Amino acid sequence: MIDDWTARAQAELARKTMPAGALGGLGQLAVQLAAHQRTLEPRIGRTRLLLFAADHGVSAAGVSAWPREVTAQMLANFARGGAAVSVLARALDVEVELIDVGVDADGAPPGVVLAKTRRGTRRFDLAPAMDAADLDAALQAGGDAVGRAGAVDALLLGEMGIGNTSSAAALLAALTGASAAQCVGRGTGIDDPTLARKQDLIEVALRRVGHARAPADLLRELGGLELAAMVGALQAARRSDTLVVVDGFIASVCALTAVRIEPAIRELLIFAHRSAEHGHAHCLAALNAQPLLALEMRLGEGSGAVLAVPLLRAAAAIMREMATFAAAGVSDKTK
Amino acid sequence: MIDDWTARAQAELARKTMPAGALGGLGQLAVQLAAHQRTLEPRIGRTRLLLFAADHGVSAAGVSAWPREVTAQMLANFARGGAAVSVLARALDVEVELIDVGVDADGAPPGVVLAKTRRGTRRFDLAPAMDAADLDAALQAGGDAVGRAGAVDALLLGEMGIGNTSSAAALLAALTGASAAQCVGRGTGIDDPTLARKQDLIEVALRRVGHARAPADLLRELGGLELAAMVGALQAARRSDTLVVVDGFIASVCALTAVRIEPAIRELLIFAHRSAEHGHAHCLAALNAQPLLALEMRLGEGSGAVLAVPLLRAAAAIMREMATFAAAGVSDKTK
Repeated sequence: MIDDWTARAQAELARKTMPAGALGGLGQLAVQLAAHQRTLEPRIGRTRLLLFAADHGVSAAGVSAWPREVTAQMLANFARGGAAVSVLARALDVEVELIDVGVDADGAPPGVVLAKTRRGTRRFDLAPAMDAADLDAALQAGGDAVGRAGAVDALLLGEMGIGNTSSAAALLAALTGASAAQCVGRGTGIDDPTLARKQDLIEVALRRVGHARAPADLLRELGGLELAAMVGALQAARRSDTLVVVDGFIASVCALTAVRIEPAIRELLIFAHRSAEHGHAHCLAALNAQPLLALEMRLGEGSGAVLAVPLLRAAAAIMREMATFAAAGVSDKTK
Repeated sequence: MIDDWTARAQAELARKTMPAGALGGLGQLAVQLAAHQRTLEPRIGRTRLLLFAADHGVSAAGVSAWPREVTAQMLANFARGGAAVSVLARALDVEVELIDVGVDADGAPPGVVLAKTRRGTRRFDLAPAMDAADLDAALQAGGDAVGRAGAVDALLLGEMGIGNTSSAAALLAALTGASAAQCVGRGTGIDDPTLARKQDLIEVALRRVGHARAPADLLRELGGLELAAMVGALQAARRSDTLVVVDGFIASVCALTAVRIEPAIRELLIFAHRSAEHGHAHCLAALNAQPLLALEMRLGEGSGAVLAVPLLRAAAAIMREMATFAAAGVSDKTK
């Protein structure tokens, strides 16, 4: 069914007044939107960012440039609308829902959905990050957020959690069999000694866990509660057949995890940007993904995904509104 | 003056609640907008694309995949709002002015500014593409379009002209001393024999003209009327101190020409996207430019520049609206 619409959309795009392939990634996006919506007049109306926050046991191990309490402080900043993603979402007309799935603080600020499973994961270099019940609860929290979103034309996934590039790098290495060095980067800006410590910690964790395990098991062992919630959201997006705009490094690792669990999720994904975080290129290659933006961002929060939304709207308009060679009376060299 | 505001804007960005440099190119764009507008509350309101069309003598030499009459047909398509750039500009709220500076047709369609200097250039492999009077008139047409635009927060430059990647490639090679092979690409989609013919033609032209000439002289010898109009628009943008969003390969070659004539133009430029056209990377390197989008587009028309406008608006909002560490009560590791 999708394949039929993909072919129809490609044929329609080829009739538009421009050389074949001239819109590059934007043209491919237009085809993806038309095929997904099963129409040659696709539209991107409501879009919604689900921003999941949680803390990480490894933040006690000195692997981040920032102290653990910044997770809760930034969640409050999101709630007041002062963070980068808050500003971008207002500027570009994207809804935001904030979900606390495991921040190490009492309660949550006003405006934040409280779905706290536990106050942060365990240190994944020493023990499983989560119990099975924690994982299930976090997956469920992600799915619930998709349910609350209702009928949207695209979901966006973002995260906040001091220490979560360590978790994502470990998970990426375990999923792909890559070395820690291939997957570990500077996150929010660590120095060389901290980078070495982060890499050592992940190597210890990989020896503890091994590679040859089911992806959901690796997620429980190495992941974060907000990472698990994003995976749960991706699974729910599959059930509701909703497109998902994937942000940077951490969101892409969650996307890879979800695709390894359920390969059909891949066709719902739109990759927003190529992050400056080392490891993202490896993750994108594993997903065979070509992101839209080249901004060298390394912020997370879903900020890159929000910036891609105008491109979705533009791509839909191309498919819907562009003239064909025949209608415009333009000579088509392909004829 | 600009430098002082650049430093102030950089300091303000460093106080915002995110790691240093986390917004990558978007943060640099926010600083550029603030410095240019001399305020920490920059805004991008009105933006306007100036789309110049003209024909080229070399279109008779079999260097394009499309026949010469497509220039006039596409200009009519722009005027009716059916082309890619028309759709994108509507979707993203960018004004468009269409200017005929040398299309080989009687008159121009309704809605097009008639500033026809001559009905296309001469074949630049055989003779100077333009006389001095043609060049002056085309430069003036570009400047006049900037005048008609009035007070805008950014100008965008686009072009249409069958054969104009040949002209731009020749000009780029002559300006930089690069070989034809480094600068010539497939334009709107030529096959291998046509590519070889295009490269031969440019080598002939480069032998005729030589490298060591003033940039304005190379523009007259090798350029197109729409390329000259874009250079004139860039010079006028400098006089009115207006930012210019540069589209793909052809617009970038015009930007390089203008910067070689008047280096201060460089600081007004924002580069929209990295085109799939071979030669663009070389041109961007000569300008030390890092474009915002990675879409592998190769359309021209100003389409990539229009797609970058939401990023300008988003960058301005970041500078204007994001909370500082102090205001948000977020721990700043840099303190």
